[in-house]
Amino acid sequence: MKDAPTIGVFDSGFGGLTVLRALTERMPLARFVFVGDTARLPYGSKSRRTVARYAAESAQFLVREQGAQFLVIACNTASALALDAIQDAVPVPVLGVIEPGAQAARRASATGDVLVMATDATVQSHAYAAACGAQGLRAMEKACPLLVPLVEEGWTEHAVTEEVVRVYLGELLAEAEAREMDADTLVLGCTHYPLLRPVIERVLEGLPRSPNARDRGHPRLMRVIDSAQSTAEAAARLFDGAAAGPDAGGSAQTEIRCFATDSVEKFERLGSRFLGRPVGKVELLDLGG
Amino acid sequence: MKDAPTIGVFDSGFGGLTVLRALTERMPLARFVFVGDTARLPYGSKSRRTVARYAAESAQFLVREQGAQFLVIACNTASALALDAIQDAVPVPVLGVIEPGAQAARRASATGDVLVMATDATVQSHAYAAACGAQGLRAMEKACPLLVPLVEEGWTEHAVTEEVVRVYLGELLAEAEAREMDADTLVLGCTHYPLLRPVIERVLEGLPRSPNARDRGHPRLMRVIDSAQSTAEAAARLFDGAAAGPDAGGSAQTEIRCFATDSVEKFERLGSRFLGRPVGKVELLDLGG
Repeated sequence: MKDAPTIGVFDSGFGGLTVLRALTERMPLARFVFVGDTARLPYGSKSRRTVARYAAESAQFLVREQGAQFLVIACNTASALALDAIQDAVPVPVLGVIEPGAQAARRASATGDVLVMATDATVQSHAYAAACGAQGLRAMEKACPLLVPLVEEGWTEHAVTEEVVRVYLGELLAEAEAREMDADTLVLGCTHYPLLRPVIERVLEGLPRSPNARDRGHPRLMRVIDSAQSTAEAAARLFDGAAAGPDAGGSAQTEIRCFATDSVEKFERLGSRFLGRPVGKVELLDLGG
Repeated sequence: MKDAPTIGVFDSGFGGLTVLRALTERMPLARFVFVGDTARLPYGSKSRRTVARYAAESAQFLVREQGAQFLVIACNTASALALDAIQDAVPVPVLGVIEPGAQAARRASATGDVLVMATDATVQSHAYAAACGAQGLRAMEKACPLLVPLVEEGWTEHAVTEEVVRVYLGELLAEAEAREMDADTLVLGCTHYPLLRPVIERVLEGLPRSPNARDRGHPRLMRVIDSAQSTAEAAARLFDGAAAGPDAGGSAQTEIRCFATDSVEKFERLGSRFLGRPVGKVELLDLGG
């Protein structure tokens, strides 16, 4: 077995801690360094050039100063707009969240029709539609701008959140049917959404089945693809088992170091919900600008 | 009557268009120039120094390049953190939204106990508590982070929004009672909230009365103070009737010019809801940074 690697994980905020969590579960023996560029979020309203510059600065910090041998871009906007620029900025492999999500959707889908829930910025980039298209899938994307604020308010099991999810999923399924799609897979295209997976699955069970599916006599369950999980699986495959732990409980001891460029307090307060364990002391990082 | 003035109105986003709307209704003969610093929002997560620098740049543009003789800071965060710095940066009078809201609360409240709904950043600044305290009022502030996203999603009359308002107001009233306050006035401390006034008033009518109020035999209605309205009234008083129109219908013709530093598309799409009329062509403004 190779030496356990140092893996750098980058997000504009702290939603990417759901990806870090999935990574520690798959590779508990690795050492992880996380940067949340909280001073400059949201990336979603910024230009491609600005996002690329910001993300490259964080990537260089992770590689040059923290010794990361591999980078995971745990941020949909940066993955959509700046993956090439980050790859150019550092001499190590770089993995985004969108491609692994699309690949997992291809493995999961029998019909080839896929639904994607994401933020407004990610939907406007059409990055999932493009990545799914490259996998031979048809994708219908839906912007769900209320879900991130609901997660950050801590309402992951609130009746209000269930109703909001029901509205968004109902509209998404109706649009898919209007285009005669027969979707059997739902991609959670935002790093905040894994915390909503239980309520999303509950709502999916209660929604009427697609008439397109019924016509063919196979009312099927919708498979839910969590791109945080898919990204961690892709990362573990790249390392070919290095840093895989002896048992599932090993990740609680995995070494994690967290940096944020601002809002250390909010990061510490909310981060543990996303990471599934205390984030510990978050260090303030000054990237300028 | 004096000549109709040119009034500059500034916000970090487009929520301040509710203040502009109230201003045009009070002073339909004035000329208005609005700047939304959308490229650099949200201000709420930024330091006092950064907010002061950003706001001063917009203020100088409005005064030097657009000839504003008077500035209204239609942004709670900038009013809370940077009113002095803006005043220092320009040679014209500057009015924020917080002081007029607190003054209106003093005129409205019989008990001297006031509730404030606002964003997380405004509550953390405690600017309303301080301004209300200066008026001899006791204020209890509540962060309501879901309300801005709900307004921006256009769900101003949605059952979900009514339920969210019910949760927030219920928690706020319970906290006020736990401190033995007898609140009779509610201040809407965010420029997005005037769009929620109907649902907030409906929820207030349905909530149980304060036992503190009941004990004293006067179950009273809660007065709602909209700081956009209060700010427009304060501005009109400062101009002593100049630019007041002949009738209430005059404001639809009031001259308005809008600039945004980014997201012109979102500004144009959502802005008319806040302004109550089409915002027209929004001009892109480059303030650097």
